[in-house]
Amino acid sequence: MKVNAVIIQREEANVSSLLFMNMKLEIPSHPYHERQAKVRAQLEERNLPLLLITNPRNIFYLTGFRGSAGIAGLGSSEAVLWVDPRYTLQAKGEARNADIVEERGSLIKAVGRWLGRKKFKRVGFEDAQISYNDYRALEKNSSGKVKFEPASEIVEGIRFVKDEGEIALIRAACQITVDAFAEVRPLVRPGARESDLAAEIEFRMRRKGAEGPAFDTIVASGPRSALPHARASNKILGKSELVIFDLGAILGGYAADMTRTLYLDSRPGRRIKSLYRAVLEAQQQAVESIREGVEGGEVDAAARESLSRRGLANFFTHSTGHGVGLDIHEKPRLGKKDKTRLKTGCVVTAEPGVYLEGLGGIRLEDTVLAGANGPEILTRSPMDDWTIS
Amino acid sequence: MKVNAVIIQREEANVSSLLFMNMKLEIPSHPYHERQAKVRAQLEERNLPLLLITNPRNIFYLTGFRGSAGIAGLGSSEAVLWVDPRYTLQAKGEARNADIVEERGSLIKAVGRWLGRKKFKRVGFEDAQISYNDYRALEKNSSGKVKFEPASEIVEGIRFVKDEGEIALIRAACQITVDAFAEVRPLVRPGARESDLAAEIEFRMRRKGAEGPAFDTIVASGPRSALPHARASNKILGKSELVIFDLGAILGGYAADMTRTLYLDSRPGRRIKSLYRAVLEAQQQAVESIREGVEGGEVDAAARESLSRRGLANFFTHSTGHGVGLDIHEKPRLGKKDKTRLKTGCVVTAEPGVYLEGLGGIRLEDTVLAGANGPEILTRSPMDDWTIS
Repeated sequence: MKVNAVIIQREEANVSSLLFMNMKLEIPSHPYHERQAKVRAQLEERNLPLLLITNPRNIFYLTGFRGSAGIAGLGSSEAVLWVDPRYTLQAKGEARNADIVEERGSLIKAVGRWLGRKKFKRVGFEDAQISYNDYRALEKNSSGKVKFEPASEIVEGIRFVKDEGEIALIRAACQITVDAFAEVRPLVRPGARESDLAAEIEFRMRRKGAEGPAFDTIVASGPRSALPHARASNKILGKSELVIFDLGAILGGYAADMTRTLYLDSRPGRRIKSLYRAVLEAQQQAVESIREGVEGGEVDAAARESLSRRGLANFFTHSTGHGVGLDIHEKPRLGKKDKTRLKTGCVVTAEPGVYLEGLGGIRLEDTVLAGANGPEILTRSPMDDWTIS
Repeated sequence: MKVNAVIIQREEANVSSLLFMNMKLEIPSHPYHERQAKVRAQLEERNLPLLLITNPRNIFYLTGFRGSAGIAGLGSSEAVLWVDPRYTLQAKGEARNADIVEERGSLIKAVGRWLGRKKFKRVGFEDAQISYNDYRALEKNSSGKVKFEPASEIVEGIRFVKDEGEIALIRAACQITVDAFAEVRPLVRPGARESDLAAEIEFRMRRKGAEGPAFDTIVASGPRSALPHARASNKILGKSELVIFDLGAILGGYAADMTRTLYLDSRPGRRIKSLYRAVLEAQQQAVESIREGVEGGEVDAAARESLSRRGLANFFTHSTGHGVGLDIHEKPRLGKKDKTRLKTGCVVTAEPGVYLEGLGGIRLEDTVLAGANGPEILTRSPMDDWTIS
């Protein structure tokens, strides 16, 4: 067997802080030591000698390396990051608290062989984040002596509660999102094109320091607003149409998520008005329920019952929200009957909506930080001024 | 067991054409019937009664549904698309040649139960595109009587050769990319910020009709240009620095991919000049080798041997190219010893580069259509005018 692997570098953690545009961000620059310690504590609890990390966001979370390809292994004494030659220099610059190993062949096969050589008997792996093929390659190359145990919940569980630096980044990403929307709002009028408005939003987020949009910006007008996940199209906005904007910046890897609905007429009819008020009320009910100790299902019920009282529950076709962080959708899910209890430091969305085929849709969404004493809305952008003449 | 599934709609294929911005695109609007027929022919050959499709791009390719979540099943008589309620309306609008089934619970479990009920004995699945967990859920819910067989190569193999409509979209995406870069080039000068240039590029691609960037636009200057996959950062461009731009628009789901390197000084030194010429020559060698019948490894060798003759092979740390289509990286890989033979209708990149720690990097990349008589460059943007005073 040819050995392509070379250890490039080992670095230890240190601490500093970061200045971002005109916002001052207090961010521990190297939280990786602490995060790895949390993983190690859980490994010890489960008596697992090693966790294999294949989700790139989890690798970033634990080492600071932000490449799109790589595998990490974390054990009581091991912290290894395997990368291919495209990423060697970047890993040397970004990764902390990990041995960097450059591998010219298949990473997953190399890791499998390494596990076999190291004679690990049991290894945790990210069952939700590894492909069937990669899992099979691990089994095959570790010479059949390693028992692999599903362990996606370890890093997911730690990421569930955001640390100080993460909250600072999400807060800044939310502010960029709010500011970009405020700048683009005056351009929203009949005759504007959905895709042009999306382009304006993303451009302004970038200029304010975002690394990009956290997801394809949604601008969906008229009947298209009834599609919860419509992209921006070439459609021209028409008078007396509903327009849904669903947008979010990404900053330092962290996402923001916000939805506003506007109506292109200064005098909405009674039906539209009452629908808007119903969603607004449901959204506020959901937000107010977000705090330490509450179950995901309870937040969902707050919104759903509010819409139900107005006979609109059938038009609310998705769950009320989801966690936001390195992923735009992450733990917890705020859906029917979800039992996960929120903790202080969870960041979630509250985004009820109603969708009526032909008429259109209304959705209102904030990114919200759960606190011991209640919610803090991170996307503070008006919802009451929603009509445009 | 609660049955949440309802058949919403069945539609048959039809044909029309599309007009895009000021470009006239001749695109069969519903190529799905023909593509599904190709899958069915392969299923018959392998004597497989059904293929389960979990890769969203493959679902789009075969049905026209472009949602981010869904599962499709294709058999000799079946064509089913399972979606959750967020996507029901969108599926009704977009999907062709498929029964649409709305499922309020877990899609993967529902599909597993359906396979069990239908008493399929063997089912092909996308082994490269399904998570370990989803695979296990299929096994569990199909009551253990279905034998699942890896079959990722079926749709991958069909997508390998682009049809007329796909080539038209890639061609248009490449033109948007070239035009956006031409507009932003005058803004490239010492003092400009990497992230601002990336924002300008993405904004202009959007305004020209792109749905967005096909990947995070790379603008990497000075020492950062030595990182093959650096994102655009807050770094300010400095005099006498190399700057790598790696960009691509996405249009109708199809990606373009182009890299240009500029030097921020009208008089580059001998070292930089000879490096640039070496990469330019290697890139041209690679492009010229692209045609029907050539192996991926031969295209790679053309670039690698060219750099090798100048003693630069060690600084070329990645493979020469990759297929481009619905994915920015897809079959074939143009890397060392790759045996896949190109066919007329393959679209690939040719992108050799050299990366010198400290000094910087140079990469030049085109998206290229393989033809029976040779290559056609789809990203026609100058490479010889590369210095900026």
